[in-house]
Amino acid sequence: MENIVFTREADSVLREKLQHTAPEDVYVLVDNNTRNYCLETLTHFHFLKEHIITIPEGEHNKSLESAARIWNVLSEQGARRNSVLVNIGGGLITDIGGFAAACFKRGIRCINIPTTLLAQVDASVGGKTGVNFRGLKNEIGIFSIPECVIIDNRFLASLPERQILSGFAEMIKHALLTSEEAVDEILQADLTRMESAEFLALIEKSVAFKAGIVEADPTEKGIRKALNFGHTVGHAIESSAIERGWEWYHGDAVAYGMIVELYLSVRQSGLDSRYYEKIRKFIRGHYPVYKPVAEKEDLYNLMLHDKKNEQAGVNFTLLCSPGEFEINHYCEKTEIIEALSVL
Amino acid sequence: MENIVFTREADSVLREKLQHTAPEDVYVLVDNNTRNYCLETLTHFHFLKEHIITIPEGEHNKSLESAARIWNVLSEQGARRNSVLVNIGGGLITDIGGFAAACFKRGIRCINIPTTLLAQVDASVGGKTGVNFRGLKNEIGIFSIPECVIIDNRFLASLPERQILSGFAEMIKHALLTSEEAVDEILQADLTRMESAEFLALIEKSVAFKAGIVEADPTEKGIRKALNFGHTVGHAIESSAIERGWEWYHGDAVAYGMIVELYLSVRQSGLDSRYYEKIRKFIRGHYPVYKPVAEKEDLYNLMLHDKKNEQAGVNFTLLCSPGEFEINHYCEKTEIIEALSVL
Repeated sequence: MENIVFTREADSVLREKLQHTAPEDVYVLVDNNTRNYCLETLTHFHFLKEHIITIPEGEHNKSLESAARIWNVLSEQGARRNSVLVNIGGGLITDIGGFAAACFKRGIRCINIPTTLLAQVDASVGGKTGVNFRGLKNEIGIFSIPECVIIDNRFLASLPERQILSGFAEMIKHALLTSEEAVDEILQADLTRMESAEFLALIEKSVAFKAGIVEADPTEKGIRKALNFGHTVGHAIESSAIERGWEWYHGDAVAYGMIVELYLSVRQSGLDSRYYEKIRKFIRGHYPVYKPVAEKEDLYNLMLHDKKNEQAGVNFTLLCSPGEFEINHYCEKTEIIEALSVL
Repeated sequence: MENIVFTREADSVLREKLQHTAPEDVYVLVDNNTRNYCLETLTHFHFLKEHIITIPEGEHNKSLESAARIWNVLSEQGARRNSVLVNIGGGLITDIGGFAAACFKRGIRCINIPTTLLAQVDASVGGKTGVNFRGLKNEIGIFSIPECVIIDNRFLASLPERQILSGFAEMIKHALLTSEEAVDEILQADLTRMESAEFLALIEKSVAFKAGIVEADPTEKGIRKALNFGHTVGHAIESSAIERGWEWYHGDAVAYGMIVELYLSVRQSGLDSRYYEKIRKFIRGHYPVYKPVAEKEDLYNLMLHDKKNEQAGVNFTLLCSPGEFEINHYCEKTEIIEALSVL
């Protein structure tokens, strides 16, 4: 994680990084929000207007067409192999921007400035880039490590609470996979002071955990599957919610996915049930109330089709205790249906 | 180059490789020619009809749309991360197929079976993949090494002579960059027996030379620029020819590009002029007669815009003697215009 900088002065870090990478020209990728709110923190850079590319919000814009739009600008403006693309925004922006940079002239460098909590603790590390294709999430993409990631929690101050909670679900997950102490610490975090130095330290710990896992298994052949904790059920909930046109965030789905998978962990992997109770209480107390998005049977069928399962049946990452987990734990349909009842 | 197999039995090597990679399913990318002529050598594989993807010939089909067509089939047919794509064809097929495979679900494996001499001695090694974009060659693409490359010279037997000569220009280039002996050997090759074991040995030497260079500099930061020999002028000739709608092969352009750059080498880098004479004689004797495709001034301007020049002015790779070269050799406009007179 030597390419990730934790700071409360993104502007001066960016200046330093641009001096260091010495590109002939700099391009900037933003969405409408970051164009309005974040770019102004960096106005003294005098980015050329023609070099600022805006992709509107919305998962449907995470497309090959958006990538082609970026390539069009780069190509038209004469970007060269030593040009740099600065991606400022949530995971959508850093994912598309990372993909576009990696494929332009067989790879130009990019600098990511994630501005949502989810992008800071999750998308910032691991080199996953990509776009959706034919309705499938991240179907087209590659692994490509950005030149540098600048994490500045001052950008979080203006985010709506639900967006914060979405990223916070991943921090809970990282804590569960780290240690008992990490779990206690995360549940006591002050979510009203996102821009504090204390919260930046929590972000750093969370990212450090993920970075350690990713380093051990960059292409997700083994231990990196630990990071799927909460996501097997979470993705199914998220897909159902999207189908129904609900305003349901990734992190909301993961939070409830974790409740189900913690229950499975208690039943299958000997997890002490007080962790299940503790996390469940926290999630119920902070996250939007869970409304049944789909029949248990439908959620089960969605899990069967999750691309991360390499054979028929459903494999989970389960917890034995905080910091101890098993990947590829196969569960029977009846066990899964029972666990879904706790939602 | 441990991933490249030289053989006269592509079918049995492919069988072995597929056993080794053990994919859940296999996809095949071909063009109309290789679908008709080469696929039949491999019919006993019983590829599923729905898994065979055909991209028509023609540089304009080396597009993002063709890549999307491949992704469509892979996605529709439920290809998974451990699926394998077998690319059978010239450089167009192995370049698009390599790109499509590298970006599908962040990378599935591919096996390349290059069937033209150019693809065998050039595109087969180095991991360059890509598609054209906005009229620019290989503007979108990445470096990605195939699981395996199977080079079988029996596929060359049915190729028209001009296509053979196109690939042979790269072999001459590799020989010039290797040694005096390599130059003598290549000029004595029997081009009427492409399918012979002797010719396969020549291909192997040529590929080994390129592989050595690429290994030393995989991302083209330095010594790999040696491979641009003949190509700075060659690309300018090729672009002019395409603009005029001429039937002019890549290798024809490179052949005449080499004559000009050998002349520059004599003038600038002390190359013994008998190499210039020898190669010039061979090219004039074998390749189509050069017709002036453009004014010298226009060719010069095209070189200025070649993406491989990182600053204003034109840099060349020049030969001091066979096997000894200098990269980034800057030449003045007047010197270049003079050299173009030898065409």
